[in-house]
Amino acid sequence: MDNSLGTIFRITSFGESHGELVGIIIDGVPAGLLLDLDFIQSELNKRKPAQSHLVTSRNEEDKLKVLSGVFNNRTTGAPVCLIIENKDIDSSYYEKYKNYLKPSHADYSAQMKYGGFSDYRGSGRLSGRITAGFVMAGAVAKQILEKYDIFIFAYTKSIGNIRDDEVYSLNEIENLTKLREKSPSRAINPEKAIQMEESIKEVKNQNDSIGGTVKCVVTNFPEGKGGPVFNSIESNISRAVFAIPAIKGIEFGAGFRSSKMKGSEHNDPWILKDGKIQTSKNDAGGIIGGISTGMPIEFTVAVKPTASIGILQKTIDIKNRKDVEIEFSGRHDPCIVPRIVSVIEAMTANVLLDCLLVEGYIPRILKVG
Amino acid sequence: MDNSLGTIFRITSFGESHGELVGIIIDGVPAGLLLDLDFIQSELNKRKPAQSHLVTSRNEEDKLKVLSGVFNNRTTGAPVCLIIENKDIDSSYYEKYKNYLKPSHADYSAQMKYGGFSDYRGSGRLSGRITAGFVMAGAVAKQILEKYDIFIFAYTKSIGNIRDDEVYSLNEIENLTKLREKSPSRAINPEKAIQMEESIKEVKNQNDSIGGTVKCVVTNFPEGKGGPVFNSIESNISRAVFAIPAIKGIEFGAGFRSSKMKGSEHNDPWILKDGKIQTSKNDAGGIIGGISTGMPIEFTVAVKPTASIGILQKTIDIKNRKDVEIEFSGRHDPCIVPRIVSVIEAMTANVLLDCLLVEGYIPRILKVG
Amino acid sequence: MDNSLGTIFRITSFGESHGELVGIIIDGVPAGLLLDLDFIQSELNKRKPAQSHLVTSRNEEDKLKVLSGVFNNRTTGAPVCLIIENKDIDSSYYEKYKNYLKPSHADYSAQMKYGGFSDYRGSGRLSGRITAGFVMAGAVAKQILEKYDIFIFAYTKSIGNIRDDEVYSLNEIENLTKLREKSPSRAINPEKAIQMEESIKEVKNQNDSIGGTVKCVVTNFPEGKGGPVFNSIESNISRAVFAIPAIKGIEFGAGFRSSKMKGSEHNDPWILKDGKIQTSKNDAGGIIGGISTGMPIEFTVAVKPTASIGILQKTIDIKNRKDVEIEFSGRHDPCIVPRIVSVIEAMTANVLLDCLLVEGYIPRILKVG
Amino acid sequence: MDNSLGTIFRITSFGESHGELVGIIIDGVPAGLLLDLDFIQSELNKRKPAQSHLVTSRNEEDKLKVLSGVFNNRTTGAPVCLIIENKDIDSSYYEKYKNYLKPSHADYSAQMKYGGFSDYRGSGRLSGRITAGFVMAGAVAKQILEKYDIFIFAYTKSIGNIRDDEVYSLNEIENLTKLREKSPSRAINPEKAIQMEESIKEVKNQNDSIGGTVKCVVTNFPEGKGGPVFNSIESNISRAVFAIPAIKGIEFGAGFRSSKMKGSEHNDPWILKDGKIQTSKNDAGGIIGGISTGMPIEFTVAVKPTASIGILQKTIDIKNRKDVEIEFSGRHDPCIVPRIVSVIEAMTANVLLDCLLVEGYIPRILKVG
Repeated sequence: MDNSLGTIFRITSFGESHGELVGIIIDGVPAGLLLDLDFIQSELNKRKPAQSHLVTSRNEEDKLKVLSGVFNNRTTGAPVCLIIENKDIDSSYYEKYKNYLKPSHADYSAQMKYGGFSDYRGSGRLSGRITAGFVMAGAVAKQILEKYDIFIFAYTKSIGNIRDDEVYSLNEIENLTKLREKSPSRAINPEKAIQMEESIKEVKNQNDSIGGTVKCVVTNFPEGKGGPVFNSIESNISRAVFAIPAIKGIEFGAGFRSSKMKGSEHNDPWILKDGKIQTSKNDAGGIIGGISTGMPIEFTVAVKPTASIGILQKTIDIKNRKDVEIEFSGRHDPCIVPRIVSVIEAMTANVLLDCLLVEGYIPRILKVG
Repeated sequence: MDNSLGTIFRITSFGESHGELVGIIIDGVPAGLLLDLDFIQSELNKRKPAQSHLVTSRNEEDKLKVLSGVFNNRTTGAPVCLIIENKDIDSSYYEKYKNYLKPSHADYSAQMKYGGFSDYRGSGRLSGRITAGFVMAGAVAKQILEKYDIFIFAYTKSIGNIRDDEVYSLNEIENLTKLREKSPSRAINPEKAIQMEESIKEVKNQNDSIGGTVKCVVTNFPEGKGGPVFNSIESNISRAVFAIPAIKGIEFGAGFRSSKMKGSEHNDPWILKDGKIQTSKNDAGGIIGGISTGMPIEFTVAVKPTASIGILQKTIDIKNRKDVEIEFSGRHDPCIVPRIVSVIEAMTANVLLDCLLVEGYIPRILKVG
Repeated sequence: MDNSLGTIFRITSFGESHGELVGIIIDGVPAGLLLDLDFIQSELNKRKPAQSHLVTSRNEEDKLKVLSGVFNNRTTGAPVCLIIENKDIDSSYYEKYKNYLKPSHADYSAQMKYGGFSDYRGSGRLSGRITAGFVMAGAVAKQILEKYDIFIFAYTKSIGNIRDDEVYSLNEIENLTKLREKSPSRAINPEKAIQMEESIKEVKNQNDSIGGTVKCVVTNFPEGKGGPVFNSIESNISRAVFAIPAIKGIEFGAGFRSSKMKGSEHNDPWILKDGKIQTSKNDAGGIIGGISTGMPIEFTVAVKPTASIGILQKTIDIKNRKDVEIEFSGRHDPCIVPRIVSVIEAMTANVLLDCLLVEGYIPRILKVG
Repeated sequence: MDNSLGTIFRITSFGESHGELVGIIIDGVPAGLLLDLDFIQSELNKRKPAQSHLVTSRNEEDKLKVLSGVFNNRTTGAPVCLIIENKDIDSSYYEKYKNYLKPSHADYSAQMKYGGFSDYRGSGRLSGRITAGFVMAGAVAKQILEKYDIFIFAYTKSIGNIRDDEVYSLNEIENLTKLREKSPSRAINPEKAIQMEESIKEVKNQNDSIGGTVKCVVTNFPEGKGGPVFNSIESNISRAVFAIPAIKGIEFGAGFRSSKMKGSEHNDPWILKDGKIQTSKNDAGGIIGGISTGMPIEFTVAVKPTASIGILQKTIDIKNRKDVEIEFSGRHDPCIVPRIVSVIEAMTANVLLDCLLVEGYIPRILKVG
């Protein structure tokens, strides 16, 4: 239960940071999909370590392997198992400091939950590396959603105090993607992207880290899907997104901003535009009553700064129950935001495909060309 | 699935705003609980309409009825069914304007989802009135949690731009509750409470509405509960909270603020205090890696302004597909925040009790005095 | 979890034998169904007590009430809550003997599970009366399945040693139903029906009881539904059927008989008949690999004799831990088989409709005339 | 959903007969278990092909590999992934006859379900080889159950018409195991074991196959576990058992025999024996009202004869829609019953451990020596 998500398109996550591998089982993949392995690999590459100077230097190839569920290059309807192996493992730091509670790391809570038996090497099961599995599943989901003209696009909206509040036209998703891929910060606005990059370099030089926000937009998602009460689209997206380490907040549409608004400001009149029923501005983020309105689904998540920093910190030794000092010397990301962008897209794809399968909107056997 | 939540302590919501009743089935209630019906009624009263000049005038008694699962005043382990009846129903407004898409209401998305067959009277199944069921279940959950010294406390943190950012000492939960109950705004700080009340009155006089935020704190929740990845406490609380109409955002601990911080600012050293392992400041909101740290669980939700306002708005008639104007003349809340406070507490109780039953921390048969 | 079943068409059972009511919540009912309440009532009447001299004399009207989910006589897509009230309650026997463990009754196991807090009156939550809820849900499911020409038919196959092993032509389901309704034994063959009736009367006169078997056949169920491994049609039907008190066995197609066969006898060649792919004899009961073959789904269940008998039996007093004698003087069925026939049909309908909704074969909004 | 089972101890099956591997993910394994890999391998060996002259000659080593969830030889609380690789693959027969519908095989139903995209080689996902995953998980579950003195024992009760109806004393489980392992038929009674072996050899020589039954007994399972209504022990065991290919029936305790009995014969008086509350004979198979009574849990399953036989059979070519003849020349078991014995034990262990975790009877962290 802890490691499975979804009703029909159901993903089950397994593996550890310094174990043999990280993997995902995807149950309920519609049969007949001609699986584009290069696309899955390219999605993996976007969250891969050591891809730029802004991220951890752990040198993993993250090479996709398909272990089940595919025959003659097509999905069979059986569970699809996808993995990447762990190759560049160095657990020395974790062994040395295994009794030191790293500030804002999950060591302590994990030790309490698992009675001291959890794998502490590289944060084990609680490592951000686990999200590679989410990305592999998401890349499968995306391939299916795109056949229904549903596109998911996320980008870095802010790093520290540098924010990009522009609202982008959703018709140019291809162009936006190109802009985003130009910058290791995964921001769109070229000027802001450079500022964000500088900002990350600065904290890196200080052996420090920094947080940020990621915005995600989904276009062409059909209206009338999801629903009250516990299966709302917000419920399902938020549940999935909080499975990603470092996420500490989520807001849909105007979100926290709406808490300061009057109804007369926030309300969004329905209009007829191009023969379609739409709203004027989409402060609801494409979801009212937990159900899609046909407008773009929009949400933003808050990412906390990486807990691993190379600055001397006070903490305690849990075994000897005494005060100690610790300085993280393992490899880590000064800012995890750019790598989280593709994880957010992936989890959104996983949730929304499941929703459309449950609704019967996407069939269990794909009609393929 | 849509209307059930939880693994062991599993609630199933039913009923409509202008139907016969609103109810909740609670499966998995531990056997042997001496059920305090007065307490459940008092919790219901806190979210009840017409309790003050700040909320809707719909005059419902919201009288609790127990239909199953209780014998000799104790829970039996069988499903507990709790209901309130709908008495003060006036559907005339909804009948008259059933083809008008009310701005920022769920009419359109519901019509699309249910093919036009949904009950539109008083928003039917999408009404905030449904949350009375959540509150009844939450009041049962709270009674059990309190036997384990776990307390849940929520309050109005902001109305529009009036904010109370004070961090309250959690030892005084009783005192805080008294302060909160003094004000129909459900704020704690007496001065701010009055400002918030004024603010709501002002929009009410303008036939407008206003949003706000609610903060929730849980004390004495044991460490090492919840867990990666999809069953994180954040995942489960957020999923439950987004089932409440009008919630558009949630953040845990420092939340969105953490996105602007450096690791050196955000990191929270572990300390030994009173022989217990704690953190210095709790920016994590009591949860790291999806697992409880033993520090208070803290989160804040954003509530959008009520969509029903008495101001003339443009919109469309879906049947005749033409532009129309609408002015809401039904009964409604100028600000739903004060009533949502008790719903947030309830949903938190429902989720956390379920977590502790799944963990085996709370037994299936209560040892009772 | 204990009291809910199904993925999309999800039923949640509540109520007790001597409590206020017995009810069912049905989530996931497709929107737009013109609900035939008379049909649901007629299904209830088939399992109702006191309908003939063969069954218990508890005189319950079992009058259907609809509490939610229906508007303008159609299902809205919201949870449908259906109940019957308990009126003719006499708990005196149960109060008097509450410490006596009735042989082959669930008192002891329930007391152990619920720590002595379960409602023992009329077996409380463990009473066969709970199945009235299954029947109400099944009657809704049947109405939908019949729109897709899927029919479910069960009948009494044996009472004690009197067996009807004839294989009935499925084209005459209407005729078979008429034959079945003629006899209070719910058997089809008129001669056997009389023998079975006599057999039940005989044990009734002896204050004893008797068991039997029920066969169920489903026609026109589409091929290629269900599936490996844990969601097999056999898995789902058996899980549902074992929720009915008194069922102790189930077999699909040739079932236990197949364990004595050679492959060359059991194997069922595929043939082309009327342009359709079929099998020659259907020993598989319409299911191979957990997936429907398009042939009729067929299974038989074993029903144990009613545990309540008016004959003096030895047992123990659990409170005083001593040997005692007990003679059941409450009202009971000398043979529960005839009343279980409609419960089996209902549970089969609940499971198969859910399967077809999950497969996307039946839509979430019914296209209605 | 299709490939996952359980609430806390949740298994997810993946892999195919002629793909790379067959595997299982086990979520919810209690932390701290010193995993005995030799024991898992020995359980695998009991269902392994080519272990005797009575079973298929496919020569697989079925060597266990642990891919995740174990650290320092102990379970960590993270998902445990166990696999075996497929080595001795010969798909030529399946490629040659891929359009021939093999009688009583799942080809047709699978093709219909998956639109022709399923992996047909060696029956792909519908092969009995998938049950190796069930056995690996079951071997983990057994190690935990045995720490609580709960033992599961299954054996061949009949092959064709040769039956062993003796009721074995449960105190001698060790001795019974030794007896069982002596015979490739997995029967206990030495004389019957030889008869069964002869019987299988006979059909093998005829290129035919034969069915049988397997009985399973669980000792020391605590009373008061499981429960009404949909989570009954019978519901959960039957659901799990029908995931095993070739199972066509299940009965608990007296099962189908009880359908012929009177209440006065079937009823099972409660007695005090050795200070413990027990029943006299256990016709209920240790379960009343879906809840364990503390008596041994007993059930029997019917296994159909292997569909693959080397005798010429008529059938059709689905592509060319014409009558054809087929003679199975692949490797197959003349009787699958002996190999199913260990699969039944495994699935029972998986279900019962999950039940005890949900009940909170077994903790999430094992207290280990």
